[in-house]
Amino acid sequence: MNKIYVVGIGPGAYEKMTIEAAEALKASDTIIGYTVYVDLVKDHFADKRFLTTPMTKEVDRCVLAFEEAKKGHVVSMICSGDAGVYGMAGLMYEVGEKYPEVELSIIPGVTAATGGAAVLGAPLIHDFCLISLSDLLTPWEKIEKRLLAAAEADFVVCLYNPSSKKRHDYLAKACDLMMKYKSGDTVCGIVSNIGREGEACRVLTLKELRDTAVDMFTTVFIGNSQTKALAGKMVTPRGYRDV
Amino acid sequence: MNKIYVVGIGPGAYEKMTIEAAEALKASDTIIGYTVYVDLVKDHFADKRFLTTPMTKEVDRCVLAFEEAKKGHVVSMICSGDAGVYGMAGLMYEVGEKYPEVELSIIPGVTAATGGAAVLGAPLIHDFCLISLSDLLTPWEKIEKRLLAAAEADFVVCLYNPSSKKRHDYLAKACDLMMKYKSGDTVCGIVSNIGREGEACRVLTLKELRDTAVDMFTTVFIGNSQTKALAGKMVTPRGYRDV
Repeated sequence: MNKIYVVGIGPGAYEKMTIEAAEALKASDTIIGYTVYVDLVKDHFADKRFLTTPMTKEVDRCVLAFEEAKKGHVVSMICSGDAGVYGMAGLMYEVGEKYPEVELSIIPGVTAATGGAAVLGAPLIHDFCLISLSDLLTPWEKIEKRLLAAAEADFVVCLYNPSSKKRHDYLAKACDLMMKYKSGDTVCGIVSNIGREGEACRVLTLKELRDTAVDMFTTVFIGNSQTKALAGKMVTPRGYRDV
Repeated sequence: MNKIYVVGIGPGAYEKMTIEAAEALKASDTIIGYTVYVDLVKDHFADKRFLTTPMTKEVDRCVLAFEEAKKGHVVSMICSGDAGVYGMAGLMYEVGEKYPEVELSIIPGVTAATGGAAVLGAPLIHDFCLISLSDLLTPWEKIEKRLLAAAEADFVVCLYNPSSKKRHDYLAKACDLMMKYKSGDTVCGIVSNIGREGEACRVLTLKELRDTAVDMFTTVFIGNSQTKALAGKMVTPRGYRDV
């Protein structure tokens, strides 16, 4: 059986990968991914064949993986974080419709939401939403509706892709929308370069977040009405009837 | 410095733990947790001292961990999945206010949402919400509001704690609420015993899910308007403008 592992390698550092992910990479002949992610694992799997494609060529990358697998190679397609959260797992199933002879195995990993949460303290202890601010494939109106719905229902919100060169004002727009329902004093947090060199975090209020510049390597957390700052950490209690 | 690792051990199987989590457990003198989770790791760390408390005694478990750390032992507090998602990380910071001499280090893990998603295919590729149906610490009205908000804004929804002896009809109630905005034909999935013996999954419609009995070891996924069933897998596309 021709086999492709779709592997979430976690936030970056080798030891943030699961044991199962490391075993899948060890069992592979070929490791395929976006250049930046391949560079993160290359040193630990030096005997493998590495293939890379640029960021925007995701469909090409999937086809490359299936063509390699068809030749009889065991292939790992790697993604940062979890392959199933804004990752390649979905596209692999879609492209895979043309390759019924290839079996896919998805290996989960630590996504930026939970990896970043661990750096900030415990912001995601209660119900939360993940929302990407990238409107490349999603109409902005849809994103706006989700931000408002999440804020009105008092979810903790974790934002992926909060900024890019073309979208430098999106985080401010998102904060303004959420402040229709969330207090400006809501406890928030930002983490950049999770599990990598230069990891940094900051706990701040929603008002402050609105006027903070973040880059594309930053994950943003907006608390619910119960979230507290405790000794510099962002902590959401387990419920509303708790001590 | 007195140290406690708060460790998410992932869905269950040893190899679903991160390398960092395994290293934290190896570096510990004492491993503390709910009996069921301790049993999952015990064989791999046979030389450790294990302490357990029952499910409902979470505050006692935290105090136990801090008291052990105060004695100079390196302690790991373990949780299934990720310690920061409905886990012990938050309560540890809260109880830890009385133990400023003890340092906490949170080690993230694979939570049931991403672990279960990998079994089902790729349901969480786009924006999603995690909602717990347990009303032990959260008023049901709040849960209801979140289910409606998530459905109206076309989020993928992942439900934790979908059922228990006392709450056998909660999943049906949750489905009825979401069907105000989501079609009864919405693609859904259920996974039980993720990463453990007896792992099982099923892809079904929201209508069918409404009348399906699930237990407390089941994680439930409700797709967005774009989610498809592809060769028996539950797959959410990356966006709304995709091929």
